[in-house]
Amino acid sequence: MASFWNNRISISIFGESHGAAIGVVIDNLPAGEYIRLEEVKEFLSRRAPKKNKTSTPRSEKDMPQIMSGLYNNRTTGTPLCAFIQNTDQHSNDYKNVQTLARPGHADYTGAKRYQGFNDVRGGGHFSGRLTAPLVFAGAICAQILERRGIYTGAHIASIHGINDKEFNHTTVSREDILNVRKKEFPVIDDKAGEKMIADVEKAHNALDSLGGIIECACVNIPAGIGSPMFEGLENTISQLVFGIPAVKGIEFGAGFKVAQMLGSQNNDEFYVDDHGHVLTRTNNHGGILGGISSGMPLVFRVAIKPTPSISQPQKTIDYSQLKNDTITIKGRHDPCIVPRAVPCVEAAVNIAVLNHMLDYPNF
Amino acid sequence: MASFWNNRISISIFGESHGAAIGVVIDNLPAGEYIRLEEVKEFLSRRAPKKNKTSTPRSEKDMPQIMSGLYNNRTTGTPLCAFIQNTDQHSNDYKNVQTLARPGHADYTGAKRYQGFNDVRGGGHFSGRLTAPLVFAGAICAQILERRGIYTGAHIASIHGINDKEFNHTTVSREDILNVRKKEFPVIDDKAGEKMIADVEKAHNALDSLGGIIECACVNIPAGIGSPMFEGLENTISQLVFGIPAVKGIEFGAGFKVAQMLGSQNNDEFYVDDHGHVLTRTNNHGGILGGISSGMPLVFRVAIKPTPSISQPQKTIDYSQLKNDTITIKGRHDPCIVPRAVPCVEAAVNIAVLNHMLDYPNF
Amino acid sequence: MASFWNNRISISIFGESHGAAIGVVIDNLPAGEYIRLEEVKEFLSRRAPKKNKTSTPRSEKDMPQIMSGLYNNRTTGTPLCAFIQNTDQHSNDYKNVQTLARPGHADYTGAKRYQGFNDVRGGGHFSGRLTAPLVFAGAICAQILERRGIYTGAHIASIHGINDKEFNHTTVSREDILNVRKKEFPVIDDKAGEKMIADVEKAHNALDSLGGIIECACVNIPAGIGSPMFEGLENTISQLVFGIPAVKGIEFGAGFKVAQMLGSQNNDEFYVDDHGHVLTRTNNHGGILGGISSGMPLVFRVAIKPTPSISQPQKTIDYSQLKNDTITIKGRHDPCIVPRAVPCVEAAVNIAVLNHMLDYPNF
Amino acid sequence: MASFWNNRISISIFGESHGAAIGVVIDNLPAGEYIRLEEVKEFLSRRAPKKNKTSTPRSEKDMPQIMSGLYNNRTTGTPLCAFIQNTDQHSNDYKNVQTLARPGHADYTGAKRYQGFNDVRGGGHFSGRLTAPLVFAGAICAQILERRGIYTGAHIASIHGINDKEFNHTTVSREDILNVRKKEFPVIDDKAGEKMIADVEKAHNALDSLGGIIECACVNIPAGIGSPMFEGLENTISQLVFGIPAVKGIEFGAGFKVAQMLGSQNNDEFYVDDHGHVLTRTNNHGGILGGISSGMPLVFRVAIKPTPSISQPQKTIDYSQLKNDTITIKGRHDPCIVPRAVPCVEAAVNIAVLNHMLDYPNF
Repeated sequence: MASFWNNRISISIFGESHGAAIGVVIDNLPAGEYIRLEEVKEFLSRRAPKKNKTSTPRSEKDMPQIMSGLYNNRTTGTPLCAFIQNTDQHSNDYKNVQTLARPGHADYTGAKRYQGFNDVRGGGHFSGRLTAPLVFAGAICAQILERRGIYTGAHIASIHGINDKEFNHTTVSREDILNVRKKEFPVIDDKAGEKMIADVEKAHNALDSLGGIIECACVNIPAGIGSPMFEGLENTISQLVFGIPAVKGIEFGAGFKVAQMLGSQNNDEFYVDDHGHVLTRTNNHGGILGGISSGMPLVFRVAIKPTPSISQPQKTIDYSQLKNDTITIKGRHDPCIVPRAVPCVEAAVNIAVLNHMLDYPNF
Repeated sequence: MASFWNNRISISIFGESHGAAIGVVIDNLPAGEYIRLEEVKEFLSRRAPKKNKTSTPRSEKDMPQIMSGLYNNRTTGTPLCAFIQNTDQHSNDYKNVQTLARPGHADYTGAKRYQGFNDVRGGGHFSGRLTAPLVFAGAICAQILERRGIYTGAHIASIHGINDKEFNHTTVSREDILNVRKKEFPVIDDKAGEKMIADVEKAHNALDSLGGIIECACVNIPAGIGSPMFEGLENTISQLVFGIPAVKGIEFGAGFKVAQMLGSQNNDEFYVDDHGHVLTRTNNHGGILGGISSGMPLVFRVAIKPTPSISQPQKTIDYSQLKNDTITIKGRHDPCIVPRAVPCVEAAVNIAVLNHMLDYPNF
Repeated sequence: MASFWNNRISISIFGESHGAAIGVVIDNLPAGEYIRLEEVKEFLSRRAPKKNKTSTPRSEKDMPQIMSGLYNNRTTGTPLCAFIQNTDQHSNDYKNVQTLARPGHADYTGAKRYQGFNDVRGGGHFSGRLTAPLVFAGAICAQILERRGIYTGAHIASIHGINDKEFNHTTVSREDILNVRKKEFPVIDDKAGEKMIADVEKAHNALDSLGGIIECACVNIPAGIGSPMFEGLENTISQLVFGIPAVKGIEFGAGFKVAQMLGSQNNDEFYVDDHGHVLTRTNNHGGILGGISSGMPLVFRVAIKPTPSISQPQKTIDYSQLKNDTITIKGRHDPCIVPRAVPCVEAAVNIAVLNHMLDYPNF
Repeated sequence: MASFWNNRISISIFGESHGAAIGVVIDNLPAGEYIRLEEVKEFLSRRAPKKNKTSTPRSEKDMPQIMSGLYNNRTTGTPLCAFIQNTDQHSNDYKNVQTLARPGHADYTGAKRYQGFNDVRGGGHFSGRLTAPLVFAGAICAQILERRGIYTGAHIASIHGINDKEFNHTTVSREDILNVRKKEFPVIDDKAGEKMIADVEKAHNALDSLGGIIECACVNIPAGIGSPMFEGLENTISQLVFGIPAVKGIEFGAGFKVAQMLGSQNNDEFYVDDHGHVLTRTNNHGGILGGISSGMPLVFRVAIKPTPSISQPQKTIDYSQLKNDTITIKGRHDPCIVPRAVPCVEAAVNIAVLNHMLDYPNF
């Protein structure tokens, strides 16, 4: 199944970094949903390379062409396909490294998996570029959810040990999400953001790269979506989030901190507020109990590794000749992928949540 | 799909804690695999309540009866079904709490999901008891993998801040795995284990519970299994691992530590050793690059929350009447679920790895 | 996936003819549906061996034990598992034929598929006995559909060239369905039924068997369920119906007769009746256009081959020694499987229709 | 899942008749397979409108552009995407019929399914044009199978009661298949073909259309592919074949004729020939027993209804206003779709067979 994800919504992502085009087919979207393409474009532009020093100067013309599934700007209910032409690519940059395994990349593992037949140029199907169709799909799902009041937003929680403020896990709101979404560098605390940018620049100058953590929240999900066992919200979200290259961990609610807590600390006390709403005083459960939404904000964090493409020489192997060698990666690469991964994480969650919302009565 | 997992192997888990039986159907196992039932029993006994103070004194007769799919002790290739009768259950313990939402449990979310029709006795289908069929399935897969040299083992990395030693991520071996597997309390450092046990006992006496972290390794997976995007090893493992109640996070290799690393630190240098084997000097990637195995040990960590059932009074709601209330949970509960979760985590990984191994040429 | 069927509803069927038990797990049933077990039993009894001469004198105690998923007689929404113990089996009858391929059976193909490791006793997982759990699943789905007015019924359209009357494809009603359902020998025209029974008895006395055709109708499906391409009603129904051993063909509406028709004859004229209902004057389309229900009765026919187990000597091979041989099948077998296949076909359709109904707004 | 088909191979088909493009994504193809694009083009040209009188004079430039998954003419193992631009379309032809339900088409059912939001121009996603990407996918699979000796071929078995000769079900060979494949009008008996063409022309002049039957054979499939219950060859083939619009029935081997046979006639006697090959004397089973290939030719027949688009006035409804009306369909339409459906049926089978072959040891 690989690059197909089949659930209540189905997603098929195709393409290689330096092939003719990349794209996505989305099936089982509800029919009749109005899609504002301008908003899709804005969502995608948050994934595009930044003008600041955290990312590559490549220009990516990533507004997908929609081939099917939209008619008079509304979803038809039949498969929605979008693709993005590959244009501004410098294949020569990669020519000389075709059987040198770039450390931290899938060159060696991909060659083993596909017996050397996969397209290795620019990482091929393993390229971070393949997150563009994922983000497109997420942007479509986001609009369908936002029309029903459900908003998803993420921010950079930390880069190289420099921490942003956290969302308040029990009260994070649509406004908090929109506030951070409109920023070019998505942090809550802009001072922390400036330090991060400076740190990334420093790493860049040192021919190095940095990793970080993204915190994501999704608000106004009604209680009762998701399923036990293998189709819980955690299962679905993590299966999709690990589809983003560079993700090495995910934690929901209090996450790994639960390991140091007492049950009496970790358990979130339920209460009914004055409006008859069921809430919890704390949100260590991150909005999910037994795989199912509780009505509290869905909150989780994702670990993003430093960009593996760095410009300093690295020891490695030539995997076609099985001999040790050294590689110096040329080309332009993001010194820190975390800012561009923010909308990717949001996209994955939008897909997951819409997927489960389709089972919600009177959706 | 909920409690069905469909991939190269398919798993269907059924049952409620206080129903007639729980069990599992496994489809697409390779035919002709000899299964030592004694070993399956041993695997399951590691999940059974411990004689020490970390778990409940309930006796669980969990050796499943095999209904189909085994003939002369070999897999037939057609569906293998096993079930476990529910016997030693005290339904009365739960009678008075049927519409009080136990904090940290799925009582409220389950009632919303199933409009109040789910079987709530003992947690019903959300009960930790449902991990028994998962472990059974994992034990079957483990034998098929071990015959091919692939071993999976987990240990308690920490409880309430008390840390065990770690597996050496680059050199962890079959022997390391077997050493920890044979212990009643699965830690590498028995001194740390004793402290953990004492701490659990203390929490138990305080009518409280503790969480922890499990570290798991899987060795001798050949390079080249798994797939990009949605069917990578991380995706599959995390989708299955989050099927274990109480898991709140998962991280592979260096995990959340990548957020503080430079690319030059995190990238694992490849080399060819004297035997012509491809290895990496470090294993921050945890044996997976681009979703595909690298041939290095697969290493990951899982966060387990404190048992939500604690015997002290807790504030909560009655969700049928939507009013605030207090609950005191009776019955016998593990003060710390982490030791019993160890074989559950192993089981999930065995299923995931066998699943991907079925695509390996000449499996 | 083999014996798993995964769609909006998931079905997992397990067991071998002479193993410990056979059964089924059904996931994603709507929660809160009241199930009358007496009615399930009646449905299953229609599949049980008949007292007349058309079937085997074996007694099959096929009322499944329900292991999970029903609580106070209502579906819980979590997996419903039922199993049937295998008791009245005479394994000795099969002992001497274990590597002789019974013509028309899956002995040889099963041995090739599973490298000889499948359980061959009584056909193992390929046995017609495995339709009992399918019928159980269909009986559950039938009740959920009938509560919403949707009724499915089948009758024996012909045996060995003796034809029953047909359902009127445009007007077939709930009453027509209930009328034929209550009969011990499910034909519309009892005179034709008597001739069929006599013909089957004659074949039985000649140590032979007979095939036939089943016609099935499903009424009151609203227009608009099913999907284009691979998830149309025809696709889903045929995928399930071919799960019944002995089925060799399926045709919807006018079926193979369309090959001799003009477009002007085959096209069904739409009209709006006095109540504002959309209908068609004829029903050559069998209630399905573009994979989607039209609101007209769903009508289709299924070809059932003669029971392959016949008591006369047959030439065949010993597939373990790859040599020619002769087989005389002992044991008790239905001289005509068609009557017992009637509820099996109904079951398959009930599963398929409920599956698609779950996508219907306000189901 | 609708237009996604997910199995060992996954297929996603997208597009609407008058949208920007139609196409297909194929995932999990084996890596390294050399694809001769010239041959793919020839396969597709067999689906293109014919120069004779049986089909529409529209020119369809259907050679797909390949976007991904092929590198140096070999499959990469990652998703292969191809799309076909829509160019020569006359949307005006359809303008005036947009809420008149064309009899025999999915206009009304599609509108109900998608609440009127689907793209209705030219049938939208329900158009026969969507078989072009299906045929493309089948052409790719065919090459992979033919390299292993497995050939699939179909011919027109009958049109409007005029019958072609049949394939010999027990001896049909690669040569028989190639002989009929190279013909512009795919019949075994050219005389019968001439009569069919004359009959189609006659229907065309009478503003009418004709249906027919396609017979398909697939040779050299090894014994032992396919699975019991829901994943047998019949299940998979029929699920895919019913994805071709206009298919109303399918029968395998003796098909509906089994209803008139005795068991002793229908059972195919096994024997071992002088080369040690296992064969059957007759092939009523059509190469499949218990869902699994027997090694004999796979043979089946498919019923194709007359083209529903005919130029004479037809009574129907306006489904937006729920009133009776009359429609006269303009535009150019095939008076008989059967010849163009021949490669579509082959394509479906090639996909199904390659899908199951991937489980064959040492594929």
